[in-house]
Amino acid sequence: MDAFASISTFLTHEDIAKASTDLKQPNQTPVLKVVSEAQTKGYDQVCIPLTTENWKNRWTGMCLMPSEENEGERNTEAAKRAESWRGGHSYNREEVTITRLDEAERVTIMVSDWLELDAADDWVRHDAEIALEQELAYASYLNVQTAILPPPRNRSHVASYARIVNSCLNKIPYLNLSIRLPIYNPTALQGAVSSPTSPGFGQTSTRRPSSISSISTTGSALGPRLIISETEVPSTPDTATSDQEDGLESTWEMWDVIRTMCDYSTRLTLALDLTPALPTTLGVLSKWMAESVRYIYLPASTFIANTKGYPVLPKVTQSFIRDTMIHRPTFILASVNAGLHSRGGEAAYSQYIRHLEKTSPVLRAVQRTGTVENFAHGYQDFLQAPLQPLMDNLHSATYQTFEQDPVKYQHYEEAMFRALVDRESDGKVIFCVAGAGRGPLVARCLTAASRAGREITIYALEKNPNAFVTLQDRKQREWGDNVTLLFGDMRQVNVPEPVDVLVSELLGSFGDNELSPECLDGAMRFLKPNGISIPSSYSAHLAPLSSSKLYNEARAGKDVKSLETPYVVMFQAVNILSGDGGGIRGKCGPQVQECWEFEHPRRDPVLNAHGLPPTNSHNARSAELTFHIPHAGILHGLAGYFEAVLYKNVGLSIHPHRKEQVSKDMLSWFPLFFPFKDPLYLPSNSELRVCIWRLTNERQVWYEWHAESFLSITAGPLSTNNDGSLLMSPMSPNSFWSLGVSSPLLDAVDSPSRNSNASMKDGREGGGAGYKLVKIGQTSLHNPGGRSSWIGL
Amino acid sequence: MDAFASISTFLTHEDIAKASTDLKQPNQTPVLKVVSEAQTKGYDQVCIPLTTENWKNRWTGMCLMPSEENEGERNTEAAKRAESWRGGHSYNREEVTITRLDEAERVTIMVSDWLELDAADDWVRHDAEIALEQELAYASYLNVQTAILPPPRNRSHVASYARIVNSCLNKIPYLNLSIRLPIYNPTALQGAVSSPTSPGFGQTSTRRPSSISSISTTGSALGPRLIISETEVPSTPDTATSDQEDGLESTWEMWDVIRTMCDYSTRLTLALDLTPALPTTLGVLSKWMAESVRYIYLPASTFIANTKGYPVLPKVTQSFIRDTMIHRPTFILASVNAGLHSRGGEAAYSQYIRHLEKTSPVLRAVQRTGTVENFAHGYQDFLQAPLQPLMDNLHSATYQTFEQDPVKYQHYEEAMFRALVDRESDGKVIFCVAGAGRGPLVARCLTAASRAGREITIYALEKNPNAFVTLQDRKQREWGDNVTLLFGDMRQVNVPEPVDVLVSELLGSFGDNELSPECLDGAMRFLKPNGISIPSSYSAHLAPLSSSKLYNEARAGKDVKSLETPYVVMFQAVNILSGDGGGIRGKCGPQVQECWEFEHPRRDPVLNAHGLPPTNSHNARSAELTFHIPHAGILHGLAGYFEAVLYKNVGLSIHPHRKEQVSKDMLSWFPLFFPFKDPLYLPSNSELRVCIWRLTNERQVWYEWHAESFLSITAGPLSTNNDGSLLMSPMSPNSFWSLGVSSPLLDAVDSPSRNSNASMKDGREGGGAGYKLVKIGQTSLHNPGGRSSWIGL
Repeated sequence: MDAFASISTFLTHEDIAKASTDLKQPNQTPVLKVVSEAQTKGYDQVCIPLTTENWKNRWTGMCLMPSEENEGERNTEAAKRAESWRGGHSYNREEVTITRLDEAERVTIMVSDWLELDAADDWVRHDAEIALEQELAYASYLNVQTAILPPPRNRSHVASYARIVNSCLNKIPYLNLSIRLPIYNPTALQGAVSSPTSPGFGQTSTRRPSSISSISTTGSALGPRLIISETEVPSTPDTATSDQEDGLESTWEMWDVIRTMCDYSTRLTLALDLTPALPTTLGVLSKWMAESVRYIYLPASTFIANTKGYPVLPKVTQSFIRDTMIHRPTFILASVNAGLHSRGGEAAYSQYIRHLEKTSPVLRAVQRTGTVENFAHGYQDFLQAPLQPLMDNLHSATYQTFEQDPVKYQHYEEAMFRALVDRESDGKVIFCVAGAGRGPLVARCLTAASRAGREITIYALEKNPNAFVTLQDRKQREWGDNVTLLFGDMRQVNVPEPVDVLVSELLGSFGDNELSPECLDGAMRFLKPNGISIPSSYSAHLAPLSSSKLYNEARAGKDVKSLETPYVVMFQAVNILSGDGGGIRGKCGPQVQECWEFEHPRRDPVLNAHGLPPTNSHNARSAELTFHIPHAGILHGLAGYFEAVLYKNVGLSIHPHRKEQVSKDMLSWFPLFFPFKDPLYLPSNSELRVCIWRLTNERQVWYEWHAESFLSITAGPLSTNNDGSLLMSPMSPNSFWSLGVSSPLLDAVDSPSRNSNASMKDGREGGGAGYKLVKIGQTSLHNPGGRSSWIGL
Repeated sequence: MDAFASISTFLTHEDIAKASTDLKQPNQTPVLKVVSEAQTKGYDQVCIPLTTENWKNRWTGMCLMPSEENEGERNTEAAKRAESWRGGHSYNREEVTITRLDEAERVTIMVSDWLELDAADDWVRHDAEIALEQELAYASYLNVQTAILPPPRNRSHVASYARIVNSCLNKIPYLNLSIRLPIYNPTALQGAVSSPTSPGFGQTSTRRPSSISSISTTGSALGPRLIISETEVPSTPDTATSDQEDGLESTWEMWDVIRTMCDYSTRLTLALDLTPALPTTLGVLSKWMAESVRYIYLPASTFIANTKGYPVLPKVTQSFIRDTMIHRPTFILASVNAGLHSRGGEAAYSQYIRHLEKTSPVLRAVQRTGTVENFAHGYQDFLQAPLQPLMDNLHSATYQTFEQDPVKYQHYEEAMFRALVDRESDGKVIFCVAGAGRGPLVARCLTAASRAGREITIYALEKNPNAFVTLQDRKQREWGDNVTLLFGDMRQVNVPEPVDVLVSELLGSFGDNELSPECLDGAMRFLKPNGISIPSSYSAHLAPLSSSKLYNEARAGKDVKSLETPYVVMFQAVNILSGDGGGIRGKCGPQVQECWEFEHPRRDPVLNAHGLPPTNSHNARSAELTFHIPHAGILHGLAGYFEAVLYKNVGLSIHPHRKEQVSKDMLSWFPLFFPFKDPLYLPSNSELRVCIWRLTNERQVWYEWHAESFLSITAGPLSTNNDGSLLMSPMSPNSFWSLGVSSPLLDAVDSPSRNSNASMKDGREGGGAGYKLVKIGQTSLHNPGGRSSWIGL
């Protein structure tokens, strides 16, 4: 197997300085030397800062005001130099680490991490933007592929940071930008009043004496500390816990603002910084799987020593990194030459990453033949238009692909076998295979009969004139007289005698989306009154999902309709947003919910003289589903699945919770993806109400979908005035509507106890509180009537 | 003045039946007769139901299941008839009221109000949709212009209603649809357990015995009652008040879902039903002003009797209707021939509406010469690209329009007069009018000098070569030698001597948006060290707004850039979403907030040898503003205003709260509208954080803007476990985060007491609760770097 992960080493100014002491060849440079040494050590890439302390000193000297007084003269001089720099600028040779194309070849650059793109001071921010543009333009000149930006540090100014990044993406073509971001805010879990870890922290940068910036200009070894909200920091100890919740969500929230303002640019990625130790629950981390994580920054300090003294990672981090492997990240190992661990030396860190790669369950599944992951490799997150086998005649190669499924046909055979065994034995059992294709079900039917020791006749119907030739060939070579071939559409053709068992494989990823209900309506007239349909029923299931990748893929179609069409997709960079547990009010359904079901034969149908339904009205369906959203995320669409009962307890399922039990390793169906044109922000503990309709007219079937989001709040008892009007009592906590969150840390908890929710679901516990939903957003299709996409009848 | 309102009468089946008894002419029909009678009575239009009881009986008979048992035989028969109808349908003659084109000429039709487009039962809804399509297609055949749909009745199924309306808008071209909707949910204010007002209420419609619909099929005289939420109705009396809040917002919330799912179709309007008495606070009603209210349905029962027995409307309703007049609504008067009031007869109702029209303050303002409303008449909600007087040379007609302003030049004269009076009197005072245009400021300057008895010299600069001819003409005819004309751009031209007072009128609607700061930077070098600039400063102000009209107008540009460009607009169908009072946390600013300010001359500028600033960096600005949103609404954009200080306390302002005091009846500036491409839903009591940037490079100036929405929740004290982790106590009300709403009725209150908010703003009152903001949404520009729109330097 190819390596999925790349490994890069992060070299500091000191490393480069050391290398400059004994340069042997005349054309050698310190950077070339460290890069070549890193290659020798087996690193794929090198990560270095582009600018030096000299540049920091020059910039700081002209753009930041010293805080001492009586510096008017010096300030005026600095202001003049700054204004001259703003008008046009170049680095001095000593202000940058790289000057040559060959030096930059295997290098990812770290942008000056003291640049405060989200400074509170307008003027500092303004000059930081100019400095960033200068640095990125220089990197671009050197053909650098990717620049890693210093993290946003201030939640309340992140929009300014985002605007600057967007501006740079647009001004500097080709260059990829990656935002370095701690996976969560580590300071929050250390308590709100912990002291700063670096001496420079807390210093403020200003250009004008009267304005105040709350950001440090010097980064510590762990990178600059985050300030999540300068104005909202609670001043009393008992509210400090709000920061704990913030900590787990706020860095993602900043990333979300940035990538949204950058309109999901494909040149913008994440460099996740694992400097802070991960929390013990992984639920809150799963959202990163749906983001474009390109780098993982991993300093030696994140490693712990195992009993032998070798560097290893904590269990949660191991697990997170193993899961991340599928996204082919580049690990940036920092300070690995500092000797932090007693055994193994520098090599031990990258060896350990390779060990995690080898033991990654997702990568193992990809390697193991027979798994869906292996079968689908290369198709992850690739959008395919669903097949329309009714309108189109499939190619032999398509049949070939689907006939490879090791599970589906075995289950069909088992269903036919059991149906045969159950069928009263008065002679031959008549089968009809409706939609025989190239004949796999016919063959399985014959095997089932021979296993059951029953005589059968099979009528094999097929409307694809090309596949019909294959069928004739197989009849002649393999099947003989027990099989009768009939050419034509099952809604028109006639079968010579009533049949006991009607077998079909017309299911799509969403069950009914390849028009199985409509086709079988046309074939039910063949069945004896007590006849059996295999499948006997199937249902469609939905869950809300987040995926920047799928959203971008769907948008790539340019046409607005491409964002209003369902796609078949093997999900990878996808996060299912819903959770189990009923939500705050205890009224939400499970993570994945059933939309509707079709049964065959249907009960009490109205039929015309030909045994056909006069209209297709009865195949219209709709569903309203309410999902609990435990963690904040962006809704990009809906994941669609199906489950089918073939016969009694033999089934097929791609339902994520049940497929392993029902039809493990079945390959034929990837899920369906229903995109939303306008992504919808969902806060932690919100509820999402999804409506989906299966609609039909004389010629077409199509789906429409819509979502509304709500926050659930609780109401305490209220008093009334004498006149019956409500008493306004803003100071009484009992009259507050409260957001019905069990605890601020619920956000970090994935499965609230079902018992406690169940006992609350009537909304009468908790001081007589009732529940009320506050609407907070919505998104929907704009193209009705199947204009965007439909399935032809 | 033309009439703004139209008046229609709503005629019932009984009215039509009565008319059919004595038809005189052979070609006369009952409908022609009632229409002609209505015209005679002075009505502009007639509103009648299109279908009759016969159709209702047929449809109900086949599409709804009778609830009695043992009706299997009849049900099968009905199911067959229904299926045949679904396949193809026509009305029988007796099932409709109108059959001829001439009958439909002045008629608006009311769609069968028993159609349950939002029935809980899928099948009832499905057949109601087919029946609606049939009815609208028939109306379209008869050339009916507008059909009024029965109201949505069920909040939880409104998405289905909306989907059907959208489908009909797309299937049936040209026909306008208007949604009849009570202005709020009246049942909520009657208490949750009030008994139904019509005998049929509570009956359920089903097509399948196993399914349940919670909607009545029969409408009362007041129309069918709303069911806001069938599953959320609180069962205990102390939570009944949640319905009170729902009542005021929920019908708007339903309208919002419908018009959003219909993608703001211009063929979709509202027929506001004023059957329920209006609440006493108008704040919650103002949102309707930003929606496309086309009809106002007003039954005689809404009128009260005055002391003489004549029908009049309650004060709040009067006021609401007067305000509505500007939108040119059609009033549909119902039951006005029923004799509900003792005096005045049928005519009294429409006479009263005409009286309200005549006494409408907005219409009076439109009629009065000299008001902005009169001046701007015809330009309301019309989007204009802002002028770019620096890049473009204005036409004489444009100057002419702006010179009409009766206030602006008077204030300029007053400012110049006071500056002259204040100026130490050692001889001549030197003026420079920078951007003299056709000379209005030069003339005022001369007047001011003569009033002050001071000798002056005026240098009049103008870069528009065409206007410069006019200036030469005026100098020769009117001004003489005290005025020296200089041709050229104020950033390049030289003035022969240092000036005392620099006068300019370069302001745009947002203050700096016509590049006054940049132009004056170029002219400041003319000033003596202690010289004066008129204006001496100006500031830009913002407020968030909702307006379907403006959103649609901005979208009409097709190009995505048209939604990322600011426009000059005279606001009319606009609702400012923000409120005063600081919001729940007491940390929000006022309704309209200042973004930034420019001062002239600026302090301590860095200048080059020519006295010009080397770069334009110092004119970059940014602002972060936090708004309190008292009532739910859709954010469509931002309203921009300016305020300028000309000299000391002489100013100009279009700030909505201050313009009356500062510069009443000034006509020259309409506000600026910054649109958002993606509308953002804002719930009641949310906070909106707006970022706006004024950006610049060597050639351009532009704005970018961004908004994030939040709900504020309060946290009670929390307990911790022994290990320091948070105790999960979902059952303890004290550990809940609570939505920081003072009361459920706060939603209907526009100015929460400042005192109580102030005392809470530290978040330590109310049981030690702190505040926390939960992010719920965002919207922003996608085109950075001025790509969408910019102002050329």
